[in-house]
Order: sequence, then structure tokens, then C-alpha cells
Amino acid sequence: MNTSSPLVYSFAAGNTDVADGGTELLGGKGKNLAEMTRLGIPVPPGFTIATTVCANYSENLQKYGSSRADAVLDELWPRIETAVTRIEDATGRKFADPKRPLLVSVRSGAARSMPGMMDTILNLGLDEESVRGLAEESGDARFAHDAFRRFVQMYANVVLGVDSARFERLLKSKMQERGVQRDADLSADDLILLREQFEGIVVEETGKPFPMDAREQLRGAILAVLASWNNERARIYRRIHRIDGLLGTAVNVQAMVFGNLGEDSGTGVAFTRDPSTGDKTPYGEFLINAQGEDVVAGVRTPRPLAELDSVMPRVAGELRDVMDRLERHYRDVQDIEFTIERGKLYLLQTRNGKRTATASLRIAVALVDEGIVTERESVRMVEASQLEQLMHPQFDPNAEKETIGDGIAASPGSAAGRIALSPDRAKQYAAAGDTVVLVRMETSPEDLEGMACSLGFLTAHGGKTSHAAVVARQMGKVCVSGCGSLVIDEDAGTLRIGDHDLAEGDSISLDGTNGQIYAGLVPTVEARFPADFERFMGWVDEARRLRVRVNADTPKDCRKAREFGAEGIGLCRTEHMFFGASRILAMRRMIVAQTGEERRAALESLEPLQRGDFEEIFRVMDGLPCNIRLLDPPLHEFLPHDDEGQRELATTLDISVEHLRARLGALHEANPMLGHRGCRLGISYPEIYEMQARAILDAACRVQNEGHHVFPEIMIPLVAEARELEQIRERLVVVAEAVFAKNDTRVDYHIGTMIEIPRAAITAERVAEHADFFSFGTNDLTQMTWGFSRDDAGSFLHRYFEDGILELDPFEVIDEAGVGFLMRHATEQGRKTKPKLKVGICGETGGEARSIAFCHSLGLDYVSCSPYRILGARLAAAQAAVAG
Amino acid sequence: MNTSSPLVYSFAAGNTDVADGGTELLGGKGKNLAEMTRLGIPVPPGFTIATTVCANYSENLQKYGSSRADAVLDELWPRIETAVTRIEDATGRKFADPKRPLLVSVRSGAARSMPGMMDTILNLGLDEESVRGLAEESGDARFAHDAFRRFVQMYANVVLGVDSARFERLLKSKMQERGVQRDADLSADDLILLREQFEGIVVEETGKPFPMDAREQLRGAILAVLASWNNERARIYRRIHRIDGLLGTAVNVQAMVFGNLGEDSGTGVAFTRDPSTGDKTPYGEFLINAQGEDVVAGVRTPRPLAELDSVMPRVAGELRDVMDRLERHYRDVQDIEFTIERGKLYLLQTRNGKRTATASLRIAVALVDEGIVTERESVRMVEASQLEQLMHPQFDPNAEKETIGDGIAASPGSAAGRIALSPDRAKQYAAAGDTVVLVRMETSPEDLEGMACSLGFLTAHGGKTSHAAVVARQMGKVCVSGCGSLVIDEDAGTLRIGDHDLAEGDSISLDGTNGQIYAGLVPTVEARFPADFERFMGWVDEARRLRVRVNADTPKDCRKAREFGAEGIGLCRTEHMFFGASRILAMRRMIVAQTGEERRAALESLEPLQRGDFEEIFRVMDGLPCNIRLLDPPLHEFLPHDDEGQRELATTLDISVEHLRARLGALHEANPMLGHRGCRLGISYPEIYEMQARAILDAACRVQNEGHHVFPEIMIPLVAEARELEQIRERLVVVAEAVFAKNDTRVDYHIGTMIEIPRAAITAERVAEHADFFSFGTNDLTQMTWGFSRDDAGSFLHRYFEDGILELDPFEVIDEAGVGFLMRHATEQGRKTKPKLKVGICGETGGEARSIAFCHSLGLDYVSCSPYRILGARLAAAQAAVAG
Repeated sequence: MNTSSPLVYSFAAGNTDVADGGTELLGGKGKNLAEMTRLGIPVPPGFTIATTVCANYSENLQKYGSSRADAVLDELWPRIETAVTRIEDATGRKFADPKRPLLVSVRSGAARSMPGMMDTILNLGLDEESVRGLAEESGDARFAHDAFRRFVQMYANVVLGVDSARFERLLKSKMQERGVQRDADLSADDLILLREQFEGIVVEETGKPFPMDAREQLRGAILAVLASWNNERARIYRRIHRIDGLLGTAVNVQAMVFGNLGEDSGTGVAFTRDPSTGDKTPYGEFLINAQGEDVVAGVRTPRPLAELDSVMPRVAGELRDVMDRLERHYRDVQDIEFTIERGKLYLLQTRNGKRTATASLRIAVALVDEGIVTERESVRMVEASQLEQLMHPQFDPNAEKETIGDGIAASPGSAAGRIALSPDRAKQYAAAGDTVVLVRMETSPEDLEGMACSLGFLTAHGGKTSHAAVVARQMGKVCVSGCGSLVIDEDAGTLRIGDHDLAEGDSISLDGTNGQIYAGLVPTVEARFPADFERFMGWVDEARRLRVRVNADTPKDCRKAREFGAEGIGLCRTEHMFFGASRILAMRRMIVAQTGEERRAALESLEPLQRGDFEEIFRVMDGLPCNIRLLDPPLHEFLPHDDEGQRELATTLDISVEHLRARLGALHEANPMLGHRGCRLGISYPEIYEMQARAILDAACRVQNEGHHVFPEIMIPLVAEARELEQIRERLVVVAEAVFAKNDTRVDYHIGTMIEIPRAAITAERVAEHADFFSFGTNDLTQMTWGFSRDDAGSFLHRYFEDGILELDPFEVIDEAGVGFLMRHATEQGRKTKPKLKVGICGETGGEARSIAFCHSLGLDYVSCSPYRILGARLAAAQAAVAG
Repeated sequence: MNTSSPLVYSFAAGNTDVADGGTELLGGKGKNLAEMTRLGIPVPPGFTIATTVCANYSENLQKYGSSRADAVLDELWPRIETAVTRIEDATGRKFADPKRPLLVSVRSGAARSMPGMMDTILNLGLDEESVRGLAEESGDARFAHDAFRRFVQMYANVVLGVDSARFERLLKSKMQERGVQRDADLSADDLILLREQFEGIVVEETGKPFPMDAREQLRGAILAVLASWNNERARIYRRIHRIDGLLGTAVNVQAMVFGNLGEDSGTGVAFTRDPSTGDKTPYGEFLINAQGEDVVAGVRTPRPLAELDSVMPRVAGELRDVMDRLERHYRDVQDIEFTIERGKLYLLQTRNGKRTATASLRIAVALVDEGIVTERESVRMVEASQLEQLMHPQFDPNAEKETIGDGIAASPGSAAGRIALSPDRAKQYAAAGDTVVLVRMETSPEDLEGMACSLGFLTAHGGKTSHAAVVARQMGKVCVSGCGSLVIDEDAGTLRIGDHDLAEGDSISLDGTNGQIYAGLVPTVEARFPADFERFMGWVDEARRLRVRVNADTPKDCRKAREFGAEGIGLCRTEHMFFGASRILAMRRMIVAQTGEERRAALESLEPLQRGDFEEIFRVMDGLPCNIRLLDPPLHEFLPHDDEGQRELATTLDISVEHLRARLGALHEANPMLGHRGCRLGISYPEIYEMQARAILDAACRVQNEGHHVFPEIMIPLVAEARELEQIRERLVVVAEAVFAKNDTRVDYHIGTMIEIPRAAITAERVAEHADFFSFGTNDLTQMTWGFSRDDAGSFLHRYFEDGILELDPFEVIDEAGVGFLMRHATEQGRKTKPKLKVGICGETGGEARSIAFCHSLGLDYVSCSPYRILGARLAAAQAAVAG
């Protein structure tokens, strides 16, 4: 452990230790608590244990087991004692004091927000002494004993690992016994008895009494938070949100304040602007006489923030002032948690607020107009993945719709799909290719994977700041929450909305913009961009250096891509063109040909069709480069694999079934991914690539003669060795010259290669001698670099994520250490040979924001992605430029 | 073209241009002609065109076609003219001189010898004028016109591409017409007429008259030699002999001398020592009144060199003297070609002589004893692949043998196999797994691929220096040549040796040491090492730095390997142990287990068997490290894939066939090479690796307790990411501690990993944190680096070799540019983390000489190979050390 660093950072009443501690060290929550303290904003005093401690703890745990890991805290303990003393001094309270006891919360807080993923302990410090102090001080014995009961339950569950259900059952049965509906209606004596029963359960389950020493409680809670960094749901969250490389979580210990000390107390959450629309009006919810968890949990439905003015006008004004200061200080919309203890306002947290795509755009533009951020800075205020939402279809306003209920419009957009009543079912439907709407009483962090594969969520409980709503806005999902008329019978697989009976698997549609719920699948229409879109995208394009192209095989996709701002085609796959009904037969005839003669005849019949494809694409892409990849998949993919299909084909081709099967047998491969495909076909059957090049260049000449500007790029796949490319290139140059002579014109064309085999990347210096451009095919490059077959990796990769061997899926985000190394090497070596070598990426990671930032850092010329990822890619490219 | 280099190097009468030209630039033949000239040894004057010209020519040909390539020679022409003038001055002859015409030979000659692979032109410079000069000067018109006829035929074939068969038919019919058996019996007039008919054929085939200008002939011949560098047989030769990276061939133009000017002329080839036995007696053959080609072609059976004394005692003495000087100068056995023109001796070539394994050893030891080379130098005089021959079995001297014929013992050893009458048939038998004996009237360079896959050759024609004999000695094949009683009917697929009728496909045995031919397959016994072996290997072990280990899975192989000098096990594959009859069932039970419980029970029954395997191996390898790889192949490899087998297994395991098939279905993979195998299994099913580690370490403890020295190394396969290894290592350390506690002893063990996935090599710095050693698995590493599946690559790789895209097979010789890059990177990065990291190689290339030299250059600690490659590997390691 680095003993020159303090590792424990106090914040109290305007004084903080924090000069040198950034977010990486203190976590987001800790950093902001310290910062608010320094700004003089009322924050309960406390301290933050740095993320490096968590890193140290995790490493020791993994290497030496839990006792060596726990020892990390022993070394640190004197500093924690000092920090506790500073809280005691600032509050005039003491641990276990029978008059003015100090209670604290212990919360996690990593450098990037992971709400709800790790553990939290509240009301820590309660014991037989201090509970009396709390009762006396608050003048409310019931409140004090309720706090104690809650603390024992929470601590037993989170720190000691006792199943909460046992406590809940006791609580429920006590309420029944007393004939009350709410735990608030139990008496202090009831609560004392309950808590003593809880303590009995702890002894039974753990073999030890519940710890009644505040310091022992604190030690246990801190360790639990440290351990929760690597719990399963936290790891899943990080993978889904592509968070890696963090040290761990910080631990924030902070004096408790109480929103449940009566009608002059309360708690709430608020945004400085509306996170759904971006409107410049504070937005939030509060509950009077409640603890903070009650708002977020969605169990009690809270009141809109605007009503606070009528309940506590002074506090409401103070809050508005604080929110305004925070927004200007952080130069972004803030999402805050506050508690009012007997009329005094405390801020418990502030962070940049999550928001919808529309709100993001609107806020970014507004903050520029208000002079708070510059145009260039504003591009960092919208997430790339959010722009994708803007392009997704909306419900057709003219469609017939049967409304079957409504709820709170918690995350906008249109979602139509099959009803899943559990996350597992949602995953199952999604895997089968269905769109899914997850319907739950309320959602919790355990549901995250199921939520990620659903289009929208419908919940019975909770408001706009419920778990479902927050997650939906962040993930770009639709959410309708607080639908009071929803009743679910998960076991029976049925549900009821008002008087509509439905079953799991039925279809439903949610409009998250107005909270309406419709029967069946409502048809959708194309999205329209919001008003601020064009201005914002102008700043984005100004900022970025990377060009953005599209992966598209059809004129339709090309048109769509131009609308979204594509600057060329990065990958046009020619094989898809062979599957059309009119073509597959000629293709098959080519494959079963027994002589070069027959093969050429079949290819000749395909050539005019291919040429036609390219002509239309060149017209649409007028003025932009079009990268066309020659045939890539192994030939057997074009033949029927079932008996019936084979018999039919043999008849059609007038050959024997035996001949056809013999050909299929000859084409069979043990590992087709590493087999006879790509340029290997181009070398075995030169006439295929020659036909394709002829079709491309002939089309280019014709379309150019129409007056269009045409820039074809011919891409050779699966090159492993420079001489493969050299040989093919030589042949294609001959083809090109013949085409130009025939058309009596020339076209500016390029020949280049995919870099998708490790060896091509390694030997890029030689490959570049024969290439006008490189395009990284990260799908295959990842498969070969990792030795993973994408089709098969499912059988073991889930375990890799569970065990933390992998944090990110290398098929989704470029693996910088492995695949990225080869990309960097290939780019550098290729440009050593040709300083102006054009280098791009056309694998699926080319549309992913983190990967785009990496491509920017490598100095690539462009990224290429599917049409619906183009806007996000433009933004991600701009953000990379601004960050870099 | 580098104009500061002369590019054309003359040699004539003691004067040479050659100070700066090494073998790389001049080729072997050119370099030695120049060197002999400088030594004052009689060599016909001439000049050498440097290999860089060929490189330039090839590049231009590939890039721009033949006219730009031919232009390379135009630039050079003035220098060639100068060099021709120097030959004219030295010989007092002139091109096209009707009195003393200059005739020259034009021959190839690369930096490494490729006998017969490229083109040669003799008697160049003959035309209507000069043929008269030659006739007059030689006093033999028939000789002169025969030379002219031969020249036209050869030039037309080699340079102008006219099929030789047309000329041969005319020649044959002329001989029939004259009723003679030999072309030598045709008259000068016959030959003039024939030659004029040949010229007619040339006009017919090429549309142009035969060039009758000596300079035009020279230009054509030089271009033909340059082009022949990339003909198919030359490329195949280079691949088989693992020659790459050469610039091209040099071209040697040299004044002709004639061995066919009468009874005082002759020609021959000779070795300074016996290339079969290593005896210190000159050895060779000659023909009186013949051209050099007659000896090598094997058409006339030549006389032993010893008889030259009785025919031409003065020349014989002169030759002995020259041979002695050459051997001392080159410090190695020389293989020379000489011609005697009217009593005057000329040397046409000298080179280091190819020899058998036994001869190599004997010569190396003798040259050390004679003080000609040092012990350290001597290790370069034996080829690594030759030592392998020494280990191969010999015919059992006590076996019953039926002799069916004999011939010349041209290359020693024992070969028993199926008779193939053509190279194609040989390849077909070899591919089917049979050993092959190729039986031909005579062999030619076109047969090379078929020869490479045969064990031995039997020919009707030719002596000890025939093509078949030379190739056999070089490749380590058996050869019996000149079997006069052999008659072949290739079309009928039958042959006859004396009065024994045989058919293609029958078995036959050849003893190349005594020339005997036996019926059927004669049984073999183990080889015994020759007398000089131990001394020589002592020098080898003194010289080398790399250790040599064995890839062995059984105690038997381990014992054999220790005999051959193995210094440990580099790869013990544990999966082979599961296929035994007593084990496969438990393995299968483990695979179809539905619970961890069942799986553990099955593994428990395997554990004592595995332990037993290891105990015996540890005993045999007492004192040496044993690297044991944990389970690698995918589980489905252990299950039966046929219906019958599945039904039986289901019954035996008492499960339903459906369950078994479902399990098989779940295990099926699209690309098993990239699937669920190696450490991925170890992570999915930790209990498998734990059982294996327990068996290894338990065995190690027991054998150590017996008093042996045990050094187990546990190797984890298929690691792609450091955390895979980290997790498995942690688990195995726990197992180890438990085993040591149980046995109350400790064993010095290591845990390390294969580096066989590109990503593991790339991220080696992190992988090394958890590894005590690296071992390169070049089989898989090559597959993934190239994206080639070894099982499938056959369908396209043959074309790659034909087209020159690949020169060497990366599965046989380490691909230094690709796979080698990753090996270097991994070694450097791994040792950055752990400077003493042990690094070795266990892929199949680990036994190949060139690859071993590369491993030496990387600074690896050891190579590992199959038992029979160990001697060769020790030698290759020594040669790498001596060269480096």
C-alpha cells in the first residue's frame, strides 16, 4: 500500500482533504461530496476511502483469500479512526453515545456510476445505548427502534449474508398479528421485540451474536462494500455498460441525517432540468417523513418536486438555489439526492444526470446558448448510443390502437413486443429473435440482463425515478412505470391490466412518451429528428477527424445511410447479391462446374446482374467512395444441405445427385472459418474475382458516363500473405484495363485488402506494397487472435464473464490489448510502406463508441458501421477528437 | 539496377573480377569457378551474371510482363559484350569464326545447389560459319555437325519452347532409315539434313527462323536461364529442400571444351572421398569420348574413376592433385565435374559433395583428425536430417529373404514398401499411409515430388552419380540403380526383374548398402550407430546452447528418447492416456455426467490410472524435467460418432440414447479447432484439471520418495488471456498443497502455459506473471496466425505452392515473418516480466533444422520433438550455435 497517499479523505463543514484526489481515486460520489463541501453546500460530514484500497483488497482476496484481504483494512484503521473523530467533532455526536449518538451511512461509489449495483448500509452505529439516545433526541421512540430494526435487518443481510426473507416474514406476521397495513403502524415495543427476534436469527445463521460495537459494525460494513465491487450483478453491469479498467469502488462513510423525523422532514431526488424532455425546469420527486431509499425503491409513490414550494417554501427556495449553483459549477445537468431533517436541507449526492436522447440534445444546445459550455465541449454531453434511439421508429400516429391501460411516462419511445414476466423469459424470447416487453411489479438490479434484451419495461410500482425508469432512460429503452391497474401472476404466466386478461408471450405495445399501453403490435413509422438535431450534428462534424462510412449491400440501405450522414461505403458484401432467386441457380451451376469452361459460362450469366447491382449503388453514392468486397464465404454455403433440396437442384442442373453430393463432400471442411474462402477462392478460381471486378468497373464506367462521380474500391478478403494480394491485384489490373478500353473511359479505382488475419496485420509492411487501402475486419481478426469461433464460444464464454476472466465481450468492443495491438502494428507498418495508406475498419466494432475512440487514437481514416449506428459513430468520433 | 556494382564478373586464366562477389551474388557454381581460376586450376574462361540481375528480371516480369523483364538484359548488354571479348582474348577464338569459333555453355547456378532444376544450353555460338570452323579444327565433320544438331535441338526446346519429342522422332526415324542403333553412327550429311529439318520445325512452331547470330543466341539463352528460376520444378525443389530468401540464379557463360573429340578426350564426375562410406579414396566415374551430360543422364554406363590411371595416367595424376588441392582449399569433400579435351584436363565445376549419413559422420571425424577442420567446425559438415537416417531400422540380418535381383548400391539403407511405377502413384500410396518404393527406368527432375514421398528408388539405368542416386543420398532415401534385368510396362502396371513378374502395388524391399532386391516386405531391426557417432555427438553437445527434449506420452518413447540424448520431456499429452480400453469408459461417463457429483465420481476412477502413467514416466526420466500438458481436445472427440457405438455406450452407461445424442449435439461445434477445448475445458470443468494435477503431483511425490529426482512441469493449453492461467494456477496450487500435505513431502514443480494462440503471444508480458514457463505450440499458433485449418488447407495450399505464393510449408518450417514475429514478441515480453522465464517449443517444427536455428536466434531454452528427430535436433542446435 502506498503509505505516502492518505487513502482516507475527510470532508466536513467546508474543509476537505481532497486537493489531490480526482474521481479515479475518490469515486464519483466521494469526489462530489468533497466538492460540494468545499462550495459551502450543506453536506453531512464524512470521509471517503480511496478506490486504491479496494484494488488492494481485491488483489489480496484473489491471491491469498479473505483473511489477507481483510487485513488491508487493519493497516488502514488508525486513519479511519482519525476520520471518524473528525465527523464526531463536526457533528458534536459520538459513536454509541446515549445522548447524541453518531449514526453513519456506508456507501459504495466508483469512478463511473453503477447505481444500485453495490452494497449500502444505513443507520450504522445503533446499539442498545445509542438507540436510547436517538429516541430521546428525536423524541420518537418508535422512530428510533424502527431505525434499529431496519439497521439490524440490512446489516444482517448485506454484511452477514442472512437471507432477508426470514426477517420479512417475521415483520409481516407481526403486522398481521397487530392488524396493521404499514410497518409505520407498529409500536416501539413491537419493533424492539422484532429486532430481538432478528438478532436471534443472526445467531442461528452465523453462530455469532449481532455485533453491537459501532466500530466493529463499521469495519464489517466497509469490508462488505469492498467485496461488493466484484459481486455478480456489478460485473454484469460493467460488461453491459462497457466499463473496465477501474481500480474498484471507493467507500463513503457519512453522518446520517433523517428525512423521517416527522412532517418537517423529508427526502427526495431531483434533476436540475427535465431528463425526459430537456426542459429548463427542475424536475423531481419527494416524500415527506421518509428515508431516501423509499423514493428510489418505488414502493411509495412520491409527490412532484413542484409541490415542495407549497409544503416547505423556504427549503424549496434554498434547494432551487443549490441546484442552480451545482449546474453552473459542473456545467451539466445535475441529478441530486437531498434530505430535509427538521427543516434543514442536506445534499447527499450530486452527479451528472442521465437523460433521454431528446433531452440530451436539447440540454447540450441550451447550455451552449446559455454560454455555459462551448460548441466543442457540447459534443461530450450526448452519448453516442443515445443518438441511435433517435433513429428508431415511432408508433404510426394514424394506426388503429386499442388502449388497455396507462402509467407514468418514464422513458420515451415506442416499444412493441412479446410480454415476458421474468428476465429469463425475456432472454429466451430475445434469443429466439422476438422483440420483448418486460412486465414486472417492479424491477431490481438482478433483472439487468433481462432488461438489456427487452425493448421496453412496464411496471406496477414506482415513478419516474424508479429503478426501471432510470435504467430505461440510460439504456435507451421505453418505460411505462406505476401502472396501478397491473396485476401479475408470475407462476401462472398470466397478467391483467384493468379488465384485460393477457398471458406471457402475448403481444403488447408501450408508448413511453405518453404512458399509454396498447394491445398487440402497433405498427411504426420512421423517426423524425428533433429540432436541435441539425445544429448539434454540425458541431459534431466540426469536431471529428474520423470519417464515417456505412456497411451496406443494397441501394435502399445506401440511401438511408446518406440520410444519416454516411461519407461512403466501408463494406459492400457481394455474396448477399448471389442469394436472390434469379441468381442462386447460376451460382450453384458455377460451383458444381466440372471445367473452367462451364464455370466461366455460369459466371457470365451472373455478370450483368452484378453489374446492375453496382450501377444503382454507384448512383446513390454519387461523389462518395464505395468499398466493395469480393466473394468471401466458402462455396458450400451456396448449396442446399438437405436431401430434398439436393435432389431438386440435381434435377434442375441435369446432373446426378451423386455428383452433387460428391461436390458437397469435397467442399466439406472441419473448420470452415479457417477454410477455403476469401482470397483463397480468388486464387483457386481466378475467374470468379475477375467477373466481379469486371462487373464493378463496368458499372463504374457506365455510371460515370451518366455524369456521376464514382470512386470504387475493390477489397480482397482474408489475405494472410502479401503475395496473395499481389497475384490477385495483377489479374484485376488486367481486367480493369480491358474494361476501360471497352468503355473508352477510365475510372479512378483502388484495390486494397481486409486486415482480418493476424498474419496480414503482422506482415502489413509487405502487404501494403500491393494495397491502396487497409480495412480492419475485426470480426474475423478477433476470432483468430483469440482462437474463438464466434459460433461456438457461447458454450464457455458465459463462464468467462461470470468468473471475471473477461470484462468486455471482444466481439462487441475492440480488445485493445490483443486485437488492438495488431491493429496498431498494421497501421504503423502499413504506413511505413505507404505514408498515405488509407486505413479504416468495417467489422461490427466499427460502430461502437469505445472502439471508435480507439480507432481515432490509432489515426485511422474512417470507421464503417450499419446504417442505424452512423449517427452514434459520428458523435463518438467527435467525442474521441475532443477528448484526445 | 545498382550501376555501381559490376553485375557481370569475368574469370579467365588466373584473373578474376570477383574480389567482392560472394556466393549470394555469384551463385555456388560461379563463385567456385572464379575461385578455381584464381587458384590456377585449369578452368575454361567465362563470366558470371550476378543473381541480382535475376531478382530484377523476376520482379519486372511479375510487375510489368516479359518485355520490361527482357529489357533488364538490354541495359546490361555492353558489360556482357566486354566479358565475351575477354573470353575471346583468353581462348583466341571468336564468335562465328569460320576458323577458330568460340562456343560457350550457358548454365544456371544459385547460391544453394539445385541440380538439374534450371536450364542449361551447350554449344552455343554454332551457325553455318562456325560449324565449318569446328569441323576443320577438330578434323571431325561428323562431330561438328552432331554438335550443331544437338545445339539446335536443345536451344529450340529450352529457349524457344519447342517440344523435344518432335526432334527425337525425326532422329529415331533417321536412325531406322540408316539401320543404325546409335546417333553416333549417323553420317555428317545425315546430321546436316536432320538439323535443317529441325530448323524447319522451329519455323513452323515459332513463326520465326532459328537465330543464327551468336549474340542473339546468347541473349535468348541467358533470358531462358533467368526465367527458369521460377519454373515449377525449381519451385517444388526449393520447397522440398526448404530453400527460400534467395535472390535468384546467377548465369554462367563459359567457353566450351569437348570430351567427345576422340579417344584422347573424355568427361567425368568425381568425389574426393567416397560419398557412400566416407572412405578416403577418390571416387567417381568417367566416359571416354563423351559429353558431360552423358555421365549424369545415366544413359551410357560409365567406368569407375580408378580405371582412368590405366587409360590416361598423366591426366589421372593431375586430377588427383587438383582434387587434393580443392579438398584442402574448401576444407570439405568436393564433388567435381571435369572434361579432358585431347589430353588436356579442365575443371567445369566443384562443390561440396553430397553424402550419406554414415559418410558424413566419417568424413567429419576424419577431417578433424587430419587437422583440416576444428571440432567445432565439424558439426556443420553433417546435415541434421541425415542423423535421422542413422536411427532408422535396418533389415533384420536373420530374416529369411528371397533375392530377386540386384543393381548398383547407390544410396544405403533399407526400404520396404509398395511398388509405384509413377510419381503420381507414389504420392497416392503415400497419402493412403503406405510406404512406397518408386521403380523407374530412370528418374528425372519431374519425378521429384513422387521421390520425396517414397522410401527408396529402383532404376534400370544409371550409376552411382545418376539423378536417382544423387537425389537419394541427399534426401536420405535408399537407391538401387542400374538394375539391368528390370523391365517396366508402365501402361500395363507390371514389371519384371529377371524372371520375377510383379505388378504395381506389390511389395518389394531394397538394400541400398549392397544393391540387393528382395521380394515382399523384409522385417527390420533397430539401427546401430556407426563407430564415429559418439565422438561426433560429443562435439555437437559441446557446441550447442539449446537443450533438446522429447515429445513423448509413454514410458517406451521416453526410454527411446533418453537413448537418443533427450534432456527432458517437452510435451507429454495426457489425453492419449484416456483412450485405453480400461479408461475410455470412465472418460465417457465423465463427459455425459449431468451433475458435478457424477463427474467427480468418474474422474476419481480415472485418477489412480493417470497417476500410474506418470509414476512410470517419472522413473524413466529420473533427473530430467517432465512437461505434462493437461487435457486439450474437445470432449466430443472421446465419444463414439456412429449409431452403433452410441447405442452400445448408452446401454453400458445405463442412459438413454437420446440423452447421449443430446449431449453430443450440445458438444457439436462449427469450428472445433476454435472451440471448447484446452484451458476452456479447465475453466468450465475445474474438477478435470484438478484431478490431473493431483495425479501428476501424487505420482511425483511417490516416485521422489523412492529416491528418484522428479521435476514435473504442468502445462496449461490454449491460453488466450492471462486471467485464464491465473485462475487455473490458483486452483492447482491449492491441489498441490493438499497433495504435499497428504504425502508429507514437497516436490519442485512448475506451472506454465502453451503459447499457441496469437493473443497469448501478444499479451505475453501479462501471461508471464502467472507462468513459470512458456512453450510454443507452433501447430495451433500457425493455424491461427495464418487462418488456415490444417485439416482443410489441402484444398487450396497446393495451388499456393504451384503459384509461388508460398515457398515453404508453414506447418513444416516456422514462418519467421508471421508466426516467428509472435514468438519473438512473446519471448521478449515474457522475459521482460520474468527475466529467467523458461521458454521452449513443442510444436512439430521444433524438430526441424531451420526452425531450430530460428529458435536458437530467439534465445529459447529448449526445443522438443519426437524421439526419432532428437539426434537431428541436437545437431541442428549445434549448427545454429556455430553459425551464430
